[in-house]
Amino acid sequence: MKIGIIGGGAVGQALGGKLQSTGHSVALGIRDPSDTELDRARNFALPLRDWAATTGARVTTMPAAAAHGEIVINATAGMQSLAALMLAGAENLAGKILIDVANPLNFSRGMPPYLDPALSGPTSLGEEIQKAFPDTQVVKALNTISNAVMIDPAQIPADHDLFIAGNSDAAKASVKALLTSAFGWTSFVDLGDIVGARGTEALLPIWIRLWGVNQTPLFNLKMVRA
Amino acid sequence: MKIGIIGGGAVGQALGGKLQSTGHSVALGIRDPSDTELDRARNFALPLRDWAATTGARVTTMPAAAAHGEIVINATAGMQSLAALMLAGAENLAGKILIDVANPLNFSRGMPPYLDPALSGPTSLGEEIQKAFPDTQVVKALNTISNAVMIDPAQIPADHDLFIAGNSDAAKASVKALLTSAFGWTSFVDLGDIVGARGTEALLPIWIRLWGVNQTPLFNLKMVRA
Repeated sequence: MKIGIIGGGAVGQALGGKLQSTGHSVALGIRDPSDTELDRARNFALPLRDWAATTGARVTTMPAAAAHGEIVINATAGMQSLAALMLAGAENLAGKILIDVANPLNFSRGMPPYLDPALSGPTSLGEEIQKAFPDTQVVKALNTISNAVMIDPAQIPADHDLFIAGNSDAAKASVKALLTSAFGWTSFVDLGDIVGARGTEALLPIWIRLWGVNQTPLFNLKMVRA
Repeated sequence: MKIGIIGGGAVGQALGGKLQSTGHSVALGIRDPSDTELDRARNFALPLRDWAATTGARVTTMPAAAAHGEIVINATAGMQSLAALMLAGAENLAGKILIDVANPLNFSRGMPPYLDPALSGPTSLGEEIQKAFPDTQVVKALNTISNAVMIDPAQIPADHDLFIAGNSDAAKASVKALLTSAFGWTSFVDLGDIVGARGTEALLPIWIRLWGVNQTPLFNLKMVRA
């Protein structure tokens, strides 16, 4: 399948590399794929020239990556997501599934970051993206775990869940199929329509805290019930 | 042990009834324990006159309940908690452990409620209570599950966790001992100091969503790690 990834940080690189290696055709879009940006190392990530050479995936502009994808993944920093997706272009996203992996974390007060008030509380980043791109089927997924767990859930030996939300049952089914075949996810908890993104994005404050407690990002949550 | 409970709703009634029945001496405080308030049924809760007759616990004013408790429990609605605890009196809480069970849920836009911006993001209700009552050891606990699970975790057959946060390790140890002996809790995840309340309070949006999905409040989360 042709996959477009918007955002060249550690999340985009992890997802894009694994998807390319499992037989998909990946184009990763950044704002300005100049020599400088290709050669610059990012936080927790490779220079994109090295990443492209290692994975065989292509690095291009955001509009070109969105146009390439049959499914597009938003792997930008949450506070920049709406602007980045506008740059990618509504026309390049129309009629497609957008997997929204981002979280609206505000780092302006330093660590720990917090959920931005404009994109949390009575709304969420997932909902705001869906409102801004009504012709796109937004599926919130993968935003509650670290990169390493996203692409290899078996790194955690016990059962654990991937929370998913979106307005279209068909789109969620397509996303589940991709996440199962490419990454090995088997346990999904469907939170219903895109309003469920309020729930999964709000897992970030406890995720950040558990990262500190566990001293490893290789953890997740399991929902258990009577 | 003498336990003071601030708040006469379903949470306070569930906790107070179970604590009284397990050998503790419970005084439950409300704003105005007049005949009217004692006889009025509350959301999801009994008229307090019936509750007191059934459980043998005492209903009194907030200051009297706080003064009675060796450990005090904040079981008020989160948006009212700071005002209610001020009414209970800092002098009646000084030198004591306060178990904060409340969540800063704002219902002013109807359902679903959302985390109030003034008490979430870069702060939390637990932290604001600790700041307002510096002579009290605030322990955030029990705020991530339904009343029924709070007092009987065995209703969920699989392993699941109680998240706890607070500045004092000794206070957290005392709270864990009480929750184990009175309710049967055995699995705790300690999130560190009271800033960890940001994590547990932010579980409410997904809790509300999972309640809808599961059609039962008898569920919880388990943290799993590599």
